[in-house]
Amino acid sequence: MKNIKIYGSGKSIPNKIIDNSFFKKTINKDDEWIFKKTGIKTRHIIEDVEEYITLITDSASQSIKNSNVSIDEINLVIMATSTPTNLFGGASIIVNRLGIRNALAFDITLACNGFNTAFYTAFQYLQNDNFKYALIIGCDCFSRWVDWSDYKTSILFGDGSGSILIGKDTEEGGLINYYYNTHCSQHDILNIRMNERESEINSVKIKNNYYDCMFMNGKDVFNYVISNLPDFIVKSLRNANLTLDEIKYIIPHQANQTILNILAEKIGISTNKILSNIEKYGNTSAASIPILLNETISKNLLEKGDIILLLGFGAGMSSSIIIFKYA
Amino acid sequence: MKNIKIYGSGKSIPNKIIDNSFFKKTINKDDEWIFKKTGIKTRHIIEDVEEYITLITDSASQSIKNSNVSIDEINLVIMATSTPTNLFGGASIIVNRLGIRNALAFDITLACNGFNTAFYTAFQYLQNDNFKYALIIGCDCFSRWVDWSDYKTSILFGDGSGSILIGKDTEEGGLINYYYNTHCSQHDILNIRMNERESEINSVKIKNNYYDCMFMNGKDVFNYVISNLPDFIVKSLRNANLTLDEIKYIIPHQANQTILNILAEKIGISTNKILSNIEKYGNTSAASIPILLNETISKNLLEKGDIILLLGFGAGMSSSIIIFKYA
Repeated sequence: MKNIKIYGSGKSIPNKIIDNSFFKKTINKDDEWIFKKTGIKTRHIIEDVEEYITLITDSASQSIKNSNVSIDEINLVIMATSTPTNLFGGASIIVNRLGIRNALAFDITLACNGFNTAFYTAFQYLQNDNFKYALIIGCDCFSRWVDWSDYKTSILFGDGSGSILIGKDTEEGGLINYYYNTHCSQHDILNIRMNERESEINSVKIKNNYYDCMFMNGKDVFNYVISNLPDFIVKSLRNANLTLDEIKYIIPHQANQTILNILAEKIGISTNKILSNIEKYGNTSAASIPILLNETISKNLLEKGDIILLLGFGAGMSSSIIIFKYA
Repeated sequence: MKNIKIYGSGKSIPNKIIDNSFFKKTINKDDEWIFKKTGIKTRHIIEDVEEYITLITDSASQSIKNSNVSIDEINLVIMATSTPTNLFGGASIIVNRLGIRNALAFDITLACNGFNTAFYTAFQYLQNDNFKYALIIGCDCFSRWVDWSDYKTSILFGDGSGSILIGKDTEEGGLINYYYNTHCSQHDILNIRMNERESEINSVKIKNNYYDCMFMNGKDVFNYVISNLPDFIVKSLRNANLTLDEIKYIIPHQANQTILNILAEKIGISTNKILSNIEKYGNTSAASIPILLNETISKNLLEKGDIILLLGFGAGMSSSIIIFKYA
């Protein structure tokens, strides 16, 4: 088994900030209520689609730049997103802007669990001698897919992009364990559903489709997470033959601070070992883990040999855990 | 390198047929003009989203049924689609309907080149001992994303789903060569672009996004395909150390019969070795290759040891070739 190393990472966040006072006007909820429920103070949202493309490109550029890997050696680009700028796939426009010439480039769609899935997929590819370095991007712009009159979802989401550049590594490091779980019987508690409308062309009836705004049964999602994830963490650690004490940080998807606090309590870990930036950015879906990972690396919080646990969960319902030795 | 075998395959096509006479009324084009330009006589289109979900499930069920593989042994499901029933990913609802309990399940988005990409991704996963059997589904419903007043695109697309079930194999067979090429500088000649609209909630301006209808610069797509794909086929055969005579069939994405005829002429192969069903179904995007592969298998056209070439191409621009020994 060839192991992998994180050679570079990046993040990019839109400039425009929406603080909690915004929601007093739209849904009559105040800062105190929102912060207590979610732990969120602000979220950053895009001003237009072009800004979204620019920030994805910027995040990916940082990963390449601080990796010192030549752009010609990157031959795999996987973009985790549920909000591509193009339904045919969002990766191609970014690959073009980065100037990468001939990389296998595609999107993986799995909402908030998309980044871990893309990371693990790239790991499979890197076992193959034909693939050298992989750029993995997580990006979403759910500010554009929430119903702004829905108090359950509109307060939660921010936009952003995070990325990592990984490659083969001969040092002792890399993936220690991957754990996944799917509860597809709960596919309908969190979705952006395809819907249809009828119209006419020269009196001939035709139908086109569109996507609704996001639907979330918050209570069911909350229950799924707090009743399953502690067990998944325990199982993944057991598979890896590790104890929780040996994990430097848990880097979880940023869904809700209350969820993270309950998880910490249930597994018996200090809340400062479950990293969080949700107060600033809200839930950025597929971007949340790589943004937080980039911040952790940028603040020099990780040393060679530290073991981290990346915790992904979201629509599907779908969860995954990557236990990784940083090198 | 562990090799793989196709254990089962399936296809499902909507009941509703649109023949070329339909377009006389909408865009004033007749059967003769459409057939001459495209080779298409009919395309099948969904009547509603529920039918789309049902036909994807049906195609996948066939793959499982005729594989004789127990559903509990399938632990990877990859759905290639650019038109998921849920922007968070279309796989979960299908996995639930099939009764698969705990498979890693996600979507890959790469338009008409999505199926080959999902197939090759599953091949990487199957090198890993944790994954046993993989269900790979291709599905799209572009009848719902074309502008029905656009004569360049509305005549081309049909809806459908095809699938295969693959697993490890100890016999001599499986993947001989994979070749890919991306021309991301041409990402804008074929897309379904994210767009935005502004509205108000209690006098507060907010923005939501939606996807436009498909845009295609048919001339540029045509030129991309005929000027690049013959060379890609030659290179993939050279990499595989094979001659065209050793290929039983080319199973290409069904974009346009004129394109397939020109490809046959350029590489010097009889048109009856480049399989086609476009006359009946039109372009079904990510579903076209697995539908045609299922038909080829179902008609007993493949014998053990036959070598086939799966030719994917589409938006990105992105192309891939899988040379595969059937076993």
